[in-house]
Amino acid sequence: MAHIELGNDLPGILGLLAYRPETAGPLGDLAEVLLRGDSTLSRGERELIAAYVSRRNECEYCSNSHAATAAAQLPWGASLVGQVFADPDDAGLSEKLRALLDIADLVRVDGRLVSAEAVAKARAAGATDREIHDTVLISAAFCMYNRYVDGLGTPVPDDPAQYVAGAQALVEHGYRPPG
Amino acid sequence: MAHIELGNDLPGILGLLAYRPETAGPLGDLAEVLLRGDSTLSRGERELIAAYVSRRNECEYCSNSHAATAAAQLPWGASLVGQVFADPDDAGLSEKLRALLDIADLVRVDGRLVSAEAVAKARAAGATDREIHDTVLISAAFCMYNRYVDGLGTPVPDDPAQYVAGAQALVEHGYRPPG
Repeated sequence: MAHIELGNDLPGILGLLAYRPETAGPLGDLAEVLLRGDSTLSRGERELIAAYVSRRNECEYCSNSHAATAAAQLPWGASLVGQVFADPDDAGLSEKLRALLDIADLVRVDGRLVSAEAVAKARAAGATDREIHDTVLISAAFCMYNRYVDGLGTPVPDDPAQYVAGAQALVEHGYRPPG
Repeated sequence: MAHIELGNDLPGILGLLAYRPETAGPLGDLAEVLLRGDSTLSRGERELIAAYVSRRNECEYCSNSHAATAAAQLPWGASLVGQVFADPDDAGLSEKLRALLDIADLVRVDGRLVSAEAVAKARAAGATDREIHDTVLISAAFCMYNRYVDGLGTPVPDDPAQYVAGAQALVEHGYRPPG
């Protein structure tokens, strides 16, 4: 049961987007640009950053959703995502992606923790300024989505098949509300 | 000096919005709907929630900016904002706004902290479901804006007059990028 009367029983953020279409527009547009727009990071890599931040924030709905969406778009799929959740140092990630996950986790705790050293490490591993920018904003944005979903107490499905089906829809149609 | 080469020396989020117009669009649209769109909370009250969250997150740029923008749109202006920053229990706020600030601060720390009691207290003080929804999303959104600004190490002006001038522009023209 959500904290407010949503007039629908959609899970997680879906119920909130349906409740308030005026904010659903920019929230969907932001996810679409960050996770699916033009980028030198693949869609799977960007979903992995989103899933990792959500997992570290312990937001069950977002971490399950974006884990499934990352898995659907990465080589080695769910087993890679599971390994990153368990221990990102032991997941065989590129040095660049590993360094970007570190930056994402610093931002997640507090933006002020991002050090010149963390940025230099990512850059030395080949990250561009634009990739560093987008990693910071993906992490910051999921600090918002996670708090939005949890702060309103939205219902969280426990059937993994529902997340796989949701991921399929996201991979096919993206984040913008239809219409 | 920001952590990445922005190609401009605009302060705070302004440099980031100019650097990446594709994300500036939805970021501006979201702030516009939340802080200035149709609502039973006044624009000043919503800016006060944004300023309070930014202050508690210790994001200097956002807290100075939104303190000035709240002050420009509230009776008793800057002295009220200063009092809310110092001690919100001693600022003469309505019970409703006080309860909404409490919800905003819980969301700021972790969405899961928002309790049925905190929501019931706001509702008993007259808050509607929509006001509770928007308070949660304003707080969540500023957890994003704060991390974005601080995570990229953007420059922070220390001249108060700059924030007052920025507030004047926001009050007049809003958050959507021109054009």
